[in-house]
Formats: sequence, structure tokens, C-alpha cells
Amino acid sequence: MLSGKSLIAGEPVEAADGVFTAAGALATFQEASGALVEHVAGVAAQAFDAYRAVPAEARADFLDHIAAELEANDGIIESAHVETALPVPRLAGERGRTVNQLRVFAGVVREGSWIEARIDRAVPGRTPAPRPDIRRMLIPIGPVAIFGASNFPLAFSVAGGDTASALAAGCPVIVKAHPAHPATSEVAARAIIAAAQATGMPAGVFSMLQSTRPDIAKALVQHPHVKAVGFTGSLRAGRALFDAGAARPDPIPVYSEMGSVNPVFILPGAAAERGSAIAEAMKESVTLGVGQFCTNPGLAIGVRAAAFDLVIEQLTARMREAQAGPMLTQGIYQSFEAGVRRLSQVEGLSMVRASAAVHAPKAAPALFVTEAAVFLRCPEVSEEVFGPSSVVVRCASRDELYEVARHLEGQLTATIHGTPGDLDEYATLISILEQKAGRLIVNGFPTGVEICPSMHHGGPYPATTDSRSTSVGTAAINRFARPVAYQNFPQASLPLELRDANPRRIWRLVDGELTKEGW
Amino acid sequence: MLSGKSLIAGEPVEAADGVFTAAGALATFQEASGALVEHVAGVAAQAFDAYRAVPAEARADFLDHIAAELEANDGIIESAHVETALPVPRLAGERGRTVNQLRVFAGVVREGSWIEARIDRAVPGRTPAPRPDIRRMLIPIGPVAIFGASNFPLAFSVAGGDTASALAAGCPVIVKAHPAHPATSEVAARAIIAAAQATGMPAGVFSMLQSTRPDIAKALVQHPHVKAVGFTGSLRAGRALFDAGAARPDPIPVYSEMGSVNPVFILPGAAAERGSAIAEAMKESVTLGVGQFCTNPGLAIGVRAAAFDLVIEQLTARMREAQAGPMLTQGIYQSFEAGVRRLSQVEGLSMVRASAAVHAPKAAPALFVTEAAVFLRCPEVSEEVFGPSSVVVRCASRDELYEVARHLEGQLTATIHGTPGDLDEYATLISILEQKAGRLIVNGFPTGVEICPSMHHGGPYPATTDSRSTSVGTAAINRFARPVAYQNFPQASLPLELRDANPRRIWRLVDGELTKEGW
Repeated sequence: MLSGKSLIAGEPVEAADGVFTAAGALATFQEASGALVEHVAGVAAQAFDAYRAVPAEARADFLDHIAAELEANDGIIESAHVETALPVPRLAGERGRTVNQLRVFAGVVREGSWIEARIDRAVPGRTPAPRPDIRRMLIPIGPVAIFGASNFPLAFSVAGGDTASALAAGCPVIVKAHPAHPATSEVAARAIIAAAQATGMPAGVFSMLQSTRPDIAKALVQHPHVKAVGFTGSLRAGRALFDAGAARPDPIPVYSEMGSVNPVFILPGAAAERGSAIAEAMKESVTLGVGQFCTNPGLAIGVRAAAFDLVIEQLTARMREAQAGPMLTQGIYQSFEAGVRRLSQVEGLSMVRASAAVHAPKAAPALFVTEAAVFLRCPEVSEEVFGPSSVVVRCASRDELYEVARHLEGQLTATIHGTPGDLDEYATLISILEQKAGRLIVNGFPTGVEICPSMHHGGPYPATTDSRSTSVGTAAINRFARPVAYQNFPQASLPLELRDANPRRIWRLVDGELTKEGW
Repeated sequence: MLSGKSLIAGEPVEAADGVFTAAGALATFQEASGALVEHVAGVAAQAFDAYRAVPAEARADFLDHIAAELEANDGIIESAHVETALPVPRLAGERGRTVNQLRVFAGVVREGSWIEARIDRAVPGRTPAPRPDIRRMLIPIGPVAIFGASNFPLAFSVAGGDTASALAAGCPVIVKAHPAHPATSEVAARAIIAAAQATGMPAGVFSMLQSTRPDIAKALVQHPHVKAVGFTGSLRAGRALFDAGAARPDPIPVYSEMGSVNPVFILPGAAAERGSAIAEAMKESVTLGVGQFCTNPGLAIGVRAAAFDLVIEQLTARMREAQAGPMLTQGIYQSFEAGVRRLSQVEGLSMVRASAAVHAPKAAPALFVTEAAVFLRCPEVSEEVFGPSSVVVRCASRDELYEVARHLEGQLTATIHGTPGDLDEYATLISILEQKAGRLIVNGFPTGVEICPSMHHGGPYPATTDSRSTSVGTAAINRFARPVAYQNFPQASLPLELRDANPRRIWRLVDGELTKEGW
């Protein structure tokens, strides 16, 4: 039932630039050509005015319909299992998350306050000059290009969070499917197309390109009709897309989320009080999903002491017994092995490897232990190794632990295990980590990212290319919008959200006061 | 009383990289060296933790003190008058605006809700997994580099809007003074330093470099300690700084506001009803401040008809009689004359020049009239000529007017003069202009930018390098902040703004509901 083609404005489109297949070979896929990039961008631009004019309720229904289509389709889980080697229960959970994301954004659109309405009414009698009536709200930024991620074939791919937030904002979406799961991508795309048809959306609201080629990705980012980009993946690819966006004649925002090492600080009191539980939970977090999460904790840091040594000992024992697991692709497996090899060659690092003798592409978890001096000296020790690998760093003192923290690059998350006494004594650590990470966690682990208003899944470079933005949680919608102010507009020409009567009953800042009232 | 030196952490600092002077030669100024860039960035980074820890009330007092210092200092108006040739009453007004901006941001900081607090409380009983407690707010992004503008020596310079919003956000500021008004800059810097001392701020919270050199500007933008940049000025300089920021190993946001042609559409009904008043007001807006505003209307567009021809005739007559005026600098005057010459050589444009015979650097206003076909064919007709110059474009039909609108680049503003009937008939024009501009004005003129929550002074490229941001109005503070989420934090380790009791009584989104209540 798969066309193996790019889908533009609801239709499969032929291209003659070669073909590719993915794991499981569920179909042969045609490589999108440069001509298709032109075509798809034109279609999205043409749909933009019609789509942004769709009333909020109808736009929310569209998102709900996508959710229902995905929920009714178990084939997508089968496809994803074959293409990514991720276990079916994990994929069923991921589908639940994907559906939930779509429904959360439908709720955000229905509620409506996300457009940040601000109204300052005219003051005709003000001296020396009258104050005009000014009203401001967010409007959709334009067609958005989304790049599917390999490690979340559902939740961060074709119908994933980026697509949900861009469609919610009122932007047509062009997805560049990840070539590691093209069949899963086509199934998800068809769900979106079916929902668009069922709810009467303009056909160009959604399209998807199938491609393995970096030049096609770059052409999409640099197409004049594309106004913003969402990406989740490697530092190299994410930076290349960012650079392509910044080098345009008219630069656009490129939101690349590129993962990080997600340091976990284990403070002395916590190590003494519950070191064994921390070691067990750390092993679980490092090996969860064969370590293929951008929030995977690749670094554990503590101050040398008997209790911390015991944590290391217990973690070492658990990692040695950990299961090997299949990775998403042969390429990711090879990168993981290369990363482990690179670390194992650094002088001053000792390695423990899960002992189960396994064959590629099954990855055996790895743990490295070293001293702060080595960490501070060798940049490669703080680079992410995508997969079930982690480095434990022993510091000689609290000050050295602070030095290690200050030495960190930007992170999605940073975690502290500490008793109330630890947190008091190490208050400076929180202050340092606020400057390093987008999300700080106390006495937990970074894997597991909630879909809610307060979630911030972002962080300073190289975690992302834009620390002001999040790719998870309701605030993700703001990435795809920009403000417009309307000065001295008659009621009839204003967007509904800014009219006196407040027909949508949204929160608005009126003359400096937040209110849902109209007048 | 002027030191003629860069001021770092409150002190004049020697540099030996040459000197420069500006109009009026109020002093000789030392060129900041590369070593000073290193020094100033280090000082700002060192002050960051202390400054961001300053309680909101004290930070607001600091801003109020700067305002009071400026208000008490008439010497700054004298300096600015000598250095920029702007008339004293205009500068007095600009000082009022500058003082007002500082006080508005003091109010924003005191009120406190700008940090966008969001709290999702734990749901321990949720299945399949408990929901953790997550709280999010904006924190300051880090040391900010601000580039003073030539055309607003007070309101967009050393103590101008960018500095006020960055200091309000909690960021140390490094200003690169505009070399056209270095004395005015030193006076403003001393006002900030005095306020910092009076209110006990860390000395490194503010520094200022004196420099004419692009390599110093670039070094500042690329210094690892600098985390964001604010700039107002030319497209060439603004783009160069943006490119420097994007090319860093860790890219940072560079907010360049680069002006635009600010099109004014004069629709048929309005032309018939009050063409004469529109012509008069247009001439006033084009020539205000010798046309040296980024919101100066450089383009007027209408549909060919007797009434519109009459508007053109009246505007022509008024422009012919308009006063010549001194421009800010010899360089700006030369650019203006070059721009007028360039336009006058385009085939199909007719020119009217104010007849007053004057000498440089006094600029005589210029008006060009042409047809839509010429406008659509010649890109140079839509390029900004900074100064009192405007182009009138006659369209053959409504559709051709839409074509002209669609052809526009990104703008700070777009204006429509229209009767209710016009606005109804030309509804599509509003939809087109929403995609082109940051602020839309009906029956007014774009010059005159209010300082209020609803103001959006920004727009798609090339108006700015970041259409999501504003450089005027209270939302400008958000440029210099980024979100951080705190997961499972004990009360004592949370920032005040996120604690249960809501001690700052700010608006917070708690479990999806906006409230000022704590618990």
C-alpha cells in the first residue's frame, strides 16, 4: 500500500533522482529531486493564507483528527518496529505520546491565549501628543520545514511535536522524512493527509519529502518560501542546517535540537544516604532505549569519598551486567562503537563494558571512570556518545566540582542528587547549571520529558541552536509565530482576537492589566 | 570633564590604538583596542552572577536612578546638539523618551510577571508514571553587547532602549558607542555609572567602548562571554554583525534593526475624501527630523485616478517648498545624496527636489514619482534612501497594487489610508501586509513609536534580523532572556518567583490556569 514517493499536497509525486531503501525494505523510496523542493515550497506558500485564516476551532479539529487517525492505525507501530528495531511496547508508548501532543496543541489552539494579545487603548487627550490605539498579537510565521528524527520515529518525526506545534500555530508544514524510517513516515503522512481532507484544510497545508541527500535538505532550508525550520538530530547535521538558514539572503530561525551529555551531579549526602538506589536508577537511565535519547545521562560527577566510590562500584557492577540492545541503524551503531573506542583510548579513563558477547548492531553498554583533571584536560571526554555510554568523573573537592560544572558546554538538562543539606552547601552549583542547561532536575533523572506548559526542552548551544526556544511542551508553538501590531485599526479590520468584545474570551493584557473581559 | 576613554566597570581605561574625533570636536577619543574587548567581556561575565542575583526592586531602582541622572543633566542635550546637529527641542523630547523608557522598564521589573512563570504541580498518582513537579521561568541570557545608533543619540544609544531592556532583564551591558557622538555617549555612560554606584550594583554591570573600527565591533560580537547583541543602524553593518554572531562556534542571537521604506498605501476613497490632508501629513512625516527615522515613509502607493493624481500634485508642491536640513553626519549626507542620484538615474522616475539652494551637509528633500511597472522591474526603487526622500508609485488597478504589495521586502511598518469602504474592498491588502511588516497603521503615519506593551518595532528581514523580536516597547525585555525549567526542586532551592507562596505576587500559569494566587 506504500507509494514510496514524496507526498505533496496530498498526492504522491514521481521523481527520477534515484531510490533508497531502509531496514526491513518495506518499500523502495524515490529520492526527492530539486524540482520537488520547488514544487513543495510553492504549494505550501500558496496554502498559507487559506490555512492561517482557518478559525481556531477548525484548526484544533484538524489536530484532533490526526491524533485519531494515528490512534486507529496499528500498522504504524509495526512499520516502526521493523524499520527502527525499537520494541513494540516502547513504540506503543511513543504513539500515545504523539497522540497526546497533538491533542495538547489542539487544546492550546482552542483556548487561544497563546497569541499573547496586548491592547493599549487610545488616549486622545494625552499631551504633548494623543496616544493612538495599538493592539498586538502573534501570527503564524509562514511555511515551516520539519526534519524527522531517527530516534523517535513517531513523536519527533512526521506527525511529531514539531509538526503539531507548527500546524497549531497556523503554519503549513513540509516534512523531510528521516531516511531510516521512510515507510513509517509515509504511514504518518497519510494520517495527516486524511485528517486534512476530513476537516477541509487546504491541501498544501502538509507535504512530505523522502530524501537521503544533504543537498535536498539544504535546498529546502534555503527556499525563499520557507520561513522557519525544526530539526532534531546530530550536532553536525543540525549545525549545517542552522548555517544554511543564517546564510540565506533573508536569514530565518532554524531550531536545531542536537542533544547533549546531560550531566548528573551526585552530591556527598545523597551518595551516603541512597547511593545504591542512585546507582541502580542511573544504570536504568543510561541504558533506557539502548541509550538513544537526547536526554541520556552521559556524565556523572561527584566528590571523591567512600560513599561516592561505592556508587561507582555499584554502577560499575550494574553496567557490567546490563543487556546489549539493537540500535536504530547500522550507522548509529558504528558511531557508538567509534565513540566508545575513542574514549577507551583517552589516557586516564578506565572502562567497563557489559560482558554479554553480542554482534552488531547490538550495542553493549559502556561505563568510563576518570578524574576531574582528565575531564578538564581532554575535550573529547565531554563530547556526547549517542548510545548507552556514560563517564563518571571524580573531583577532589567542591571547588573542583564547580570547575567541572563551569567547564561544561550547553546542555538540555543537568541533574543534581542531593539531600537538603547538600543543596544548601552546593547552592552555587545550581547557579552555575542555570547558565548551562535548559532543565534542571533534583533527585531524578533527565530521561522522560513531560508534555506540559512548564516543560523546557532546549538549552544553550550545542544542545540547541536557539536557547530561547523549546521543542517539547506547549511553549513550542511560539517558535513558529511572530508579533504584529495593529495601530488605529477599525474593529471590522482587526483579527477576532483583538476586537473590543473579546469574542474568543482569551487572556489579554489591556492597558497593562491581564483580563478575559471585553467591552 | 570628558576622559575621551572607554569606560570599563566604572573607570576610564587607557588604550593606545589611535584616536578619533567627531563633529564639534568636544574631545579626542581613544580607539578601544582588542585587549579592551577582552577586558570588558571578562568584567561583564564576572558581574553577571552578582547582577542577576540583585532583587527586582533594587534592579528597578537602578533603572530609575539612571533616568533621574539623565533628567538632571542638560549637558547631554548640549553635547548631542553639537555632535548630531539635531535641534535642541527634538533632543529634549528624545531625552524625555529615554527617561520614560528606563522608568517603563523599572515598572516591568517591579511588576515581575514578564518572566512568564509556569508551574505544573506533581501528580504522584498518575499512571503509568507519576507526573513530577516542573516550574519554568525566564532568566537573563548573559552579558549583552549594544551598539549605539547615530540617529537617536539618546533613545537608541548608550542609555537607550536596548540598554534599558537588557539591564531590566538582568544582563550586564557592554555598549559600543556610536562614533558620531562619542561625547554624548560618555555623558550618558557616566550617568549609568553614577546610578550603578548609588544603588550598589556590581561595577561590571555596565561598560562602554569607544571605537570607529569594524574589527572591534566584530570581536565584541564574537567574544565567548557575550550572549546576545542589540544593534540599530544600516543594513550593511547590521547584517555584518548578524553574520558574525551566526558564525561563532556557539551562535548567539543578534537583534539588528535596520530600517525600511515603510510603505504608505493611499486607497481611492481616502484620496478622494481627504487627499489634501494626507499630502500635507505625508510631507511632514517624510521630512520630520530630516527624514532620519527608521520609520520614515519612503514609499507611497495608490491606484491611478484623478483623486490620487491630485494627492501627488499636492505632495509634489509641498515637497518642493520643504526646508532643507542638516543631517547627522557628513557620511549620512553623502549616502543620502548618492541615493537620490541613484534614483534620479532610473528610467521612468520623475524627480522633484526642494528648490532651496543649500550646501552640504544640508539635505534638500526629494520626491520621485513612477509607475508600478517600473517599481516591479527595478529593485533599487524599493531600497531605503535614509533621509527626506520618498517614491510615489501609481498602480493601474487594485490587482497591480496587490502585486506591488507582494513585491515588498520585510518592513518595520506599513500604512493604509482608507475609508471603511476602502478597507472592506482592499481587505486582501491587510492580509498581504501582515506578512510584510511588524506594525500596520490605518489612517496615520509610521513616524512616532509608542513605548507600551502592545508596541512591536520589528519586522521580517531586512527590517530586522529577527522578526520575532521588538526593540521598542515592554516586550523588548524578552530578547535578553531564556527559559529554564526546574524539576522536582525543593522550595528553598527555587527562585522566589516559582515558590508555592508566590511572594512576588506575579501572574503565573499554574496547572494551566493564570493566577496571582499562591498556596
